[in-house]
Amino acid sequence: MQTERHSVADPLALAERYASVRALSTALVAPLSDADASVQSMDDASPTKWHLAHTTWFFETFVLRDFVPGYQLHDPQFPFLFNSYYEAEGARQARGRRGMITRPTLAAVREYRTAIDLALITAIPDLPSAARDLITLGCHHEEQHQELLITDILHLLAQNPIEPALWPAARKVPVAMPSPINWVEHPGGIVEIGHDGDGFAFDAEGPRHQTLLARHALADRTVSNGEWAAFIADGGYRDPRHWLADGWAWVQREGITAPLYWEERDGGWTRFGLDGRRAIDPAAPVTHISFYEADAYASWAGARLPTEAEWEAAVQSQDPESGNQLDLAGPVEPRPAISGPAFFGDVWEWTGSAFRPYPGFRAAEGAVGEYNGKFMSGQCVLRGGSCATPRGHARASYRNFFYPHQRWQFTGVRLAKDL
Amino acid sequence: MQTERHSVADPLALAERYASVRALSTALVAPLSDADASVQSMDDASPTKWHLAHTTWFFETFVLRDFVPGYQLHDPQFPFLFNSYYEAEGARQARGRRGMITRPTLAAVREYRTAIDLALITAIPDLPSAARDLITLGCHHEEQHQELLITDILHLLAQNPIEPALWPAARKVPVAMPSPINWVEHPGGIVEIGHDGDGFAFDAEGPRHQTLLARHALADRTVSNGEWAAFIADGGYRDPRHWLADGWAWVQREGITAPLYWEERDGGWTRFGLDGRRAIDPAAPVTHISFYEADAYASWAGARLPTEAEWEAAVQSQDPESGNQLDLAGPVEPRPAISGPAFFGDVWEWTGSAFRPYPGFRAAEGAVGEYNGKFMSGQCVLRGGSCATPRGHARASYRNFFYPHQRWQFTGVRLAKDL
Amino acid sequence: MQTERHSVADPLALAERYASVRALSTALVAPLSDADASVQSMDDASPTKWHLAHTTWFFETFVLRDFVPGYQLHDPQFPFLFNSYYEAEGARQARGRRGMITRPTLAAVREYRTAIDLALITAIPDLPSAARDLITLGCHHEEQHQELLITDILHLLAQNPIEPALWPAARKVPVAMPSPINWVEHPGGIVEIGHDGDGFAFDAEGPRHQTLLARHALADRTVSNGEWAAFIADGGYRDPRHWLADGWAWVQREGITAPLYWEERDGGWTRFGLDGRRAIDPAAPVTHISFYEADAYASWAGARLPTEAEWEAAVQSQDPESGNQLDLAGPVEPRPAISGPAFFGDVWEWTGSAFRPYPGFRAAEGAVGEYNGKFMSGQCVLRGGSCATPRGHARASYRNFFYPHQRWQFTGVRLAKDL
Amino acid sequence: MQTERHSVADPLALAERYASVRALSTALVAPLSDADASVQSMDDASPTKWHLAHTTWFFETFVLRDFVPGYQLHDPQFPFLFNSYYEAEGARQARGRRGMITRPTLAAVREYRTAIDLALITAIPDLPSAARDLITLGCHHEEQHQELLITDILHLLAQNPIEPALWPAARKVPVAMPSPINWVEHPGGIVEIGHDGDGFAFDAEGPRHQTLLARHALADRTVSNGEWAAFIADGGYRDPRHWLADGWAWVQREGITAPLYWEERDGGWTRFGLDGRRAIDPAAPVTHISFYEADAYASWAGARLPTEAEWEAAVQSQDPESGNQLDLAGPVEPRPAISGPAFFGDVWEWTGSAFRPYPGFRAAEGAVGEYNGKFMSGQCVLRGGSCATPRGHARASYRNFFYPHQRWQFTGVRLAKDL
Repeated sequence: MQTERHSVADPLALAERYASVRALSTALVAPLSDADASVQSMDDASPTKWHLAHTTWFFETFVLRDFVPGYQLHDPQFPFLFNSYYEAEGARQARGRRGMITRPTLAAVREYRTAIDLALITAIPDLPSAARDLITLGCHHEEQHQELLITDILHLLAQNPIEPALWPAARKVPVAMPSPINWVEHPGGIVEIGHDGDGFAFDAEGPRHQTLLARHALADRTVSNGEWAAFIADGGYRDPRHWLADGWAWVQREGITAPLYWEERDGGWTRFGLDGRRAIDPAAPVTHISFYEADAYASWAGARLPTEAEWEAAVQSQDPESGNQLDLAGPVEPRPAISGPAFFGDVWEWTGSAFRPYPGFRAAEGAVGEYNGKFMSGQCVLRGGSCATPRGHARASYRNFFYPHQRWQFTGVRLAKDL
Repeated sequence: MQTERHSVADPLALAERYASVRALSTALVAPLSDADASVQSMDDASPTKWHLAHTTWFFETFVLRDFVPGYQLHDPQFPFLFNSYYEAEGARQARGRRGMITRPTLAAVREYRTAIDLALITAIPDLPSAARDLITLGCHHEEQHQELLITDILHLLAQNPIEPALWPAARKVPVAMPSPINWVEHPGGIVEIGHDGDGFAFDAEGPRHQTLLARHALADRTVSNGEWAAFIADGGYRDPRHWLADGWAWVQREGITAPLYWEERDGGWTRFGLDGRRAIDPAAPVTHISFYEADAYASWAGARLPTEAEWEAAVQSQDPESGNQLDLAGPVEPRPAISGPAFFGDVWEWTGSAFRPYPGFRAAEGAVGEYNGKFMSGQCVLRGGSCATPRGHARASYRNFFYPHQRWQFTGVRLAKDL
Repeated sequence: MQTERHSVADPLALAERYASVRALSTALVAPLSDADASVQSMDDASPTKWHLAHTTWFFETFVLRDFVPGYQLHDPQFPFLFNSYYEAEGARQARGRRGMITRPTLAAVREYRTAIDLALITAIPDLPSAARDLITLGCHHEEQHQELLITDILHLLAQNPIEPALWPAARKVPVAMPSPINWVEHPGGIVEIGHDGDGFAFDAEGPRHQTLLARHALADRTVSNGEWAAFIADGGYRDPRHWLADGWAWVQREGITAPLYWEERDGGWTRFGLDGRRAIDPAAPVTHISFYEADAYASWAGARLPTEAEWEAAVQSQDPESGNQLDLAGPVEPRPAISGPAFFGDVWEWTGSAFRPYPGFRAAEGAVGEYNGKFMSGQCVLRGGSCATPRGHARASYRNFFYPHQRWQFTGVRLAKDL
Repeated sequence: MQTERHSVADPLALAERYASVRALSTALVAPLSDADASVQSMDDASPTKWHLAHTTWFFETFVLRDFVPGYQLHDPQFPFLFNSYYEAEGARQARGRRGMITRPTLAAVREYRTAIDLALITAIPDLPSAARDLITLGCHHEEQHQELLITDILHLLAQNPIEPALWPAARKVPVAMPSPINWVEHPGGIVEIGHDGDGFAFDAEGPRHQTLLARHALADRTVSNGEWAAFIADGGYRDPRHWLADGWAWVQREGITAPLYWEERDGGWTRFGLDGRRAIDPAAPVTHISFYEADAYASWAGARLPTEAEWEAAVQSQDPESGNQLDLAGPVEPRPAISGPAFFGDVWEWTGSAFRPYPGFRAAEGAVGEYNGKFMSGQCVLRGGSCATPRGHARASYRNFFYPHQRWQFTGVRLAKDL
């Protein structure tokens, strides 16, 4: 969880923020059936229903239960069902068995949401500052789950041989192929990164601190589908010289030959998306690649991945609410860049940095202290937000993290090089 | 599939039989949500929706497609989704991934059933005898799936920590505890077993043939829950001397200490059933035990399992439609015996016989030849039908079969001994 | 373990029998290094050193410890190391970790053998009859391990890419290709099978009892390598129609395309044996096939596997010490048949019978009661002995058993058919 | 492989260095039998014989084969057997199957070593500078394998229930318990780390570069066995709050309750070492702990792990040849510190830094380029050398790396804290 820096002073503004976040979750799942919302397609993914209930449990537990005198739980069995990983909150349904919970139904989970929304909005005026901070945190937490909800639904539908579409395809605007990469140079030297405490941030984004960069350059855009197809055509997935040893073992073991959801049909590459299976757009950013693939591509291209400090230093003057991010329930897909360096939106960008604590980092006390710190091993930092990230959620200092083999998120890659 | 011996000559009777079987399937699933009907709880079990569609695919494929000129498939993707294991019918969804098929929805599967029912009933009068035989086979096939449907739902609900009940508990009639076992002796000698060709039977039930029995005795009833609790209390699950080596390895590896669905609560044994979690009934037959457990119990009790020939010889004069079998959608549970030797209903009884072909057995040609013959390795024969077997489905010659570790069916045990 | 029927009355004869059996084990391992004798190539196989020590532990435990007053164990740690699976004898080294025991060395194990041999031979004159029966049992037990020792060494050497030869190839005698199969008919009827109690037998071979055979015929020889190559060439391993479902799953999962140790080199089939890698001999019996393969071949050939009763009824007038069996340490390999029906030696023949108890079978009390009875699930009976079976070990009533996927023994197949 | 910076100009000095390194390997394995030297105890470890042959293969391949005209391979099968992971050098024995190679024998591997030693020493005077650099690299490479050889033997012997000792225990010198930790403070600021190119280094140690440290302090010694026992007694292994999520999953899955090789006997902690099982020395540094354990201990102690830059900055004035490192074949064990800050020897110290490339790092071309770069994912850096590291092998800039769960090396932990 974040180090709390600023509470939302105005109860009305907080209630509006809360209601708006909650409404987007509900809108996102509108096209789903009870079955769509209940099945778990792999251990890494969770059922929609679980996301909807878990985010609600978060508010109920850390706000209503802890701050509203005499509050009675909506259902005494829900904490067991909908706790994610908070050891301090007791036993819980095993992660890989979340798909067994066919009851409560999707309708009952919606009722749970409505009941908690009512109780919470009613309670806001009387809550202390600490509780309001937790509501703010809960909103950001729910935004994270909105992105997971989209990627988890996509993964589920991709397992179905009939490849159902959730939404119609976005209208395609004809665009030119992206220009060759321009390299944006940086002279190196001491820079400051990390969140400065002004506005909300998760705990792992701080403390703000100085770090030393070497001279380097970053590409002004991410790698495109067309470029990735060239990597495949050049035997990129079959040549161990490009790959980290762990990555090569993964490629061999899993039989990886292309990004997730790509399939060759009638001699051309297609991808599965929430609008069904369609031809890849060569101009759009490549997505659904693992860290191993990103690293191998960079090696093949004679470049490397950026560090997270290089990335953050490059974007501090940019608007984190720009770019292709999630505004509404509807078509979600990386889109071809129009012009200019764009670092936010479309795809999360793998960096070469391990997810480890910044100097001076300390996890918070209590259950919410389990938010980020305990995940600081084995995972890699991604930056920038994606087409499935609710607009306003990401920041220059935002650190997303996944294991190097994972690729069901909207993940992509930007090249860097030493100078 | 069975060797066809008798077709149903009267189209009207066949249509009535068909309609009646199909209606029971639909009735059984009435209390289920779309999610309940879509989730797969383990590789051995299938989603309700899949059972409903697969049995329909059977009629559509082997009758409508093969015998009705110009028939158009209801949906060209369904054969891939709903073929179970017929290699001759082409590729199909992997068995362990049937739970990924959230679409078509339960409603769409119901429509599929209705459409095929209409087409088939319309077609019956013009169908040749071979097709009518396949309809008869399909009805028996669907009855098998009705039993699986019940046991698979039970398994799914048992995975849910809130332990939902599908049906209310059956009204309990006070009964006395079962009397001590009476041993029904048999002098040995040549007997005839196997189906005699009069009426329907699956292929593996024949040919009828002579076999030689040694002198032996069979218990006049199956082992009760109360007796099983005594076995547990005596350390039965912890003493390797009672167990087959494979069984002991299974007990150790899986941490088995009681029948499936049993849990100790407040010092007493409970079981989970379709009416939720309740105290065991000590007078009722024990169920949800594996072959390994059945064999270990028999060893502990100084007895052995019956052979399938001994069992069949004992019941040839009994009414296979007697006993506690499935009549309607509603409470399903083994019940205390009232009186007299009862071999049909309540629980399938593990025998000591491996499921192997009878002398002279030949599998049928074509896809339906895959019905039973290819499963004749590694499985054990069970006899007698259960509380979840549609009444009329079982017979004296009926051979059910499962792997020795499986126990999610309504399986129990009757003792035998050499004389 | 066997029910003891006859003790060896003459101490000198018993000592000679003992010494002779023990000497063959030692001779078999003469060409092995300490490393060859210590490594375990798979869970199913054991290191040579372990076989040598385990058979010795058997005599030390069940004879010296139990019958010689004041006997001190050779090494108090050896029971833990060299007990195989006798639960009644306490904890032991896990089966799959036998290859970790690099100490004691092969030399120390030889010393253990010498010490026990001396103590036992010295003790024989004063031992009671029960102890002498156990010595007899121990000799038969050691003969079983001699066969395992050969097959386990073969398996180990086959893992080594340099494919070392243990022995030179046997001199090849030019022989004609085997004649087409002749079918030896049997009219059916009641026959007696099982050991009659005259001479030694393992417990599972009895009681002798009547059984009823249907009319049938058995092939007068086993299937040859040449015939097997034709099965492969006809796509036998790629056509699911021939296979049991479990067998087909095994073929797919393991990528099986030929018998164990077969490889195609320069367009022809070779096999690895204790004399290295050589071309297959088309006239010799096929070996190193699983039950699944045997059954699939029989299906392809329009035949079936014999039952164990059919096999035993056919051989009761034959000499069980005839045929190609193990006499000395030296080349071991199935050889082309010269003439006439031969049922003993060359290859163990898979039958279609599950390894289950005969009517009236009861396991012995105590540790030796674990000898056979507890393995009576999931395994198939093989009959006849092989080129690696010490001559004199097999009998008409002898029941060997393995799991249906195992094939590192010298296993082959004889066809049968219904009449 | 390293970036080559300095070749050894004097052929005689190079030959002496070579001979000395090679002799130590041979001395280390003197007490081992052929079996000890052949068995593989887990995938991560290799047999002694394999280490001896692989290091020899390295010289034969990259020096003799590539630089000596007309050189004939000692054995054409050895490259397949003894290549470790160089994809560029072709196919090879699977890592987890190295223990299957019982032939060539240990004696034959010794002959291989002798033959290559003779050929190489003879060739040195005529070799070009690039080849001499490879000899120097090969010596450092062999020193790495000397450490692995010791830890792999220890792991193998630990699997043997009789717990054999390879060497006698070292003479214990009575020492006082270590003083409480003193914290050595560092003011922060820009420091230079990485190898400066003067003398040999592996490629991953460079380029030398500036990095920025925050204010911090390092403990003046590593954590002791006594302190670790207190962590255990305080429930350290049972409290998820101290653990990284991956670490907690590992503890639960593997049932971890103490360092590797620790067992409680008669109420006290013992450890297994190359001198057998003995009581732990509470004053000696704890060893055989994973990164997860090191991190959990630091969390429990209110501290953190050092970064690799902090560690390197602290030791640049220290003598890397000081401390308890490997000089001779004989007792190997961490020993209680006598006095003063000691950073080299005894135990490798886990740092909090992921093993990733330094700014400007580029892997070398060709097979030796696979030396380090491809392992730069998922592993953690360790610093300082251990009691099993040949003296002279480690340096201030030396970066060792292992996966966070591995602990069969002599790994320990030094605490750090922010100021």
